[in-house]
Amino acid sequence: MDRSENRNVTYAEAAAFLRKEDDFLILAHASPDGDTIGSSYALCLGLRALGKRARVSCSDPIPPRYGHLALPDVPVFEPRVIVTSDIADTQLFGKANAIYADKVALCIDHHPSNTQYAERVLLLPTASSTCEIMADLLKKLEVKITKNIADCIYTGLSTDTGCFRYSNTGAKALRLAAEMLECGAHTAAINKRLFETVSRQRLAVEQMALQTMEFHLDGRAALIVISLDMREKTGAAESDMEGFASLPVQVEGVQVGITIHEKGDRLYKLSVRTNEGVDASAICAHFGGGGHKAAAGCKIEGTLADVKTAILNVVEKALDQHGWHSDTE
Amino acid sequence: MDRSENRNVTYAEAAAFLRKEDDFLILAHASPDGDTIGSSYALCLGLRALGKRARVSCSDPIPPRYGHLALPDVPVFEPRVIVTSDIADTQLFGKANAIYADKVALCIDHHPSNTQYAERVLLLPTASSTCEIMADLLKKLEVKITKNIADCIYTGLSTDTGCFRYSNTGAKALRLAAEMLECGAHTAAINKRLFETVSRQRLAVEQMALQTMEFHLDGRAALIVISLDMREKTGAAESDMEGFASLPVQVEGVQVGITIHEKGDRLYKLSVRTNEGVDASAICAHFGGGGHKAAAGCKIEGTLADVKTAILNVVEKALDQHGWHSDTE
Ligand SMILES: [Mn+2]
Ligand SMILES: [Mn+2]
Repeated sequence: MDRSENRNVTYAEAAAFLRKEDDFLILAHASPDGDTIGSSYALCLGLRALGKRARVSCSDPIPPRYGHLALPDVPVFEPRVIVTSDIADTQLFGKANAIYADKVALCIDHHPSNTQYAERVLLLPTASSTCEIMADLLKKLEVKITKNIADCIYTGLSTDTGCFRYSNTGAKALRLAAEMLECGAHTAAINKRLFETVSRQRLAVEQMALQTMEFHLDGRAALIVISLDMREKTGAAESDMEGFASLPVQVEGVQVGITIHEKGDRLYKLSVRTNEGVDASAICAHFGGGGHKAAAGCKIEGTLADVKTAILNVVEKALDQHGWHSDTE
Repeated sequence: MDRSENRNVTYAEAAAFLRKEDDFLILAHASPDGDTIGSSYALCLGLRALGKRARVSCSDPIPPRYGHLALPDVPVFEPRVIVTSDIADTQLFGKANAIYADKVALCIDHHPSNTQYAERVLLLPTASSTCEIMADLLKKLEVKITKNIADCIYTGLSTDTGCFRYSNTGAKALRLAAEMLECGAHTAAINKRLFETVSRQRLAVEQMALQTMEFHLDGRAALIVISLDMREKTGAAESDMEGFASLPVQVEGVQVGITIHEKGDRLYKLSVRTNEGVDASAICAHFGGGGHKAAAGCKIEGTLADVKTAILNVVEKALDQHGWHSDTE
C-alpha cells in the first residue's frame, strides 16, 4: 500500500473491519504503560465477547502495578490480523514484536506523532488516551462494558491524564470516567495502585536525588542530579525512575526545573521542565536537543560541574529574555 | 428553636430562603481549605449576580494557593443573614467568627458529623464536597455559572476528592468537573497550584521526615517521626505540614503507616493510616484515640523509644488478628 495514501479510518470503518475478521493479535507498546495495556486488554475482552479469538502481546513484561487488569488465558491460535493499540511508531513494538512492523492491519492511537505505519489507522490526536478512543470503538461494536473492561478503560484514562490532573483532561475524559465508575470500575483502588504506592527503592533514590537539589538564579531555576551510583546503591529498577523530571519544577518560585541523569563517563542526559511560559525546547536546542515548550531534553558531555555551568548559562539567558513577570496561567 | 426539631431543608427551600433575604455574611471555616473557600465564594458571587449584597468571612487568612479565586471587594454593609459553608461544627468558626455561633440562618455542608447548629441545614453527607452541593443550589437559584464561579466550584471539588483520586469521587463529581471545565474553569492551572507546587520549607521538612522512616514487622508497618526541631530548622509553616500521615502507608507492602509528631516534652501525637482493611481506629483506641477504619489518631506520652515500642506492640497484635492475606481491594 502506498504510504502517501490516506490510511485513516472512521470508528464505523474500524468497527466493520473488526466485526468481519477473526484471530486477532493485539500489540501493546514496549515499556508498557496503563494506556497501552488498558486499551489492548479492553479490545481483547470486547472481541472475545463478540465470539472471536484474540490475545494481547507485549515485548516487555507487564509491570505488577497493572496486575489488577485481568485477561484470562486462551488456547494458543495462529493470529491472522494484527492490531496495535497506543503505539505511535513501529520502533515502539520492542524486540519480540518487531517482526510485525509491516504487518499491522489496524492501528488505534492518540499520539499526534503517529507514523501511519498500518494499513488502517484510527487516530484521534485530541483524545486524552487511547482508552478514550477504545471506549467509543467498543460502543460502536455494541460490546457491553463489563466491570473488567471498565477497569481497563479507567486505568488508561487515569494513567494518561495523571488522574485527571493534566491539561489533556477534557470534559469527555471526565464523563467517560463517570461512566466507567457506573459500569463497576474499581476507581479508588486503581488510583491507589497507580498513584499512591511507591517501592522502597523509589523512595530511597528519590531521597538521594532531593538531597542534591540546588537553587540558582534567585530561585527561578532548580536542579537535581541522579547518578549511576544512586541507582546501584538503591537497586532502583527502570520503573522506579519515572517522574523525576517533574520534581524540581514543583518547588514554589521555580520557573525552570532541571534533572541531570548521569549516563556514563562524562555523559549526562538532561530533562528540562518549565513553568509560566519559559521555552524548554529552546533551552535544549542549544545542546542539540528538543521537545515541547514545557518539557524538553538534551545530552551534554563533560564533568558534572561543566554540565551545570553550561545549562545554567543558557537558562539564565532564557529567563532574561522571558522577563520577570510571573503569569501563573 | 428546639434542637430536637428537624432543621433539614431541601434545595428548593434553601433557594427560596436565599431569594427572599438580603445582606448575607457567608462564613468559611478556620484553617480554610479549597472546599470551604470555593463554596463560600461561589455562593457569594451567585447572590451578587442576583442583585444582593454578600461577602465572605474567614477567621484565618486565605492561603496563597487559593489566590486564583477572585472575589471583588464591595462597600461595607451590616450583615443580616449568616450562612455557613462546609462548616460541620461551630468550633470550626475560629476566633473572629465565634460570635456568630448561635446566629446562623442557613448551614450548607457535606460532613456526616454536622452538629445541626443552624436554623436551616442543607446537608448532603453523600456529596464529595460542599461545592458539589453548592453547584446544585446555584442551579436552583438560576445563577449563570461564570468562569469565576466555575473556578470556585472546581477548586472545592478537586480539593476534597484529591483531584478525583479518593473513594468519595462519585460519577456526579466527575460529571460536575466536566461541566465546570466547559464553563471555563482553569482546571489544569488550578490542579498545578493545588497538587504540584511545594514550598522549599515543605520539601526540606519532608526530606528530614523521610530520613526517619523505619520498617517493622516484616515491612508491614512503617513509621516516620516529625520532631519540633525539624519544623524549627526548616521554618515550615502549619500549611507545609499537610499530608504527612499518608507517606508511610504508600510504601509497597506496608499495611500500617504511622506518623509520630512530637508535640512537647514526652508528648507525641500519632497518625495511623492503614491499607487492606486493617482497623486503624481499633489500634488508636488502645491509647484513648479514635477515628475511621483507614485513618485514626491518638496521643501517647513517654520517650520517643517508649512511644514506638507501645504503638508497634499494638500494631503487631492487630496484624496478627487481621492475618497475612493481602487483599488489595
Ligand atoms: Mn496513551
Ligand atoms: Mn468539604
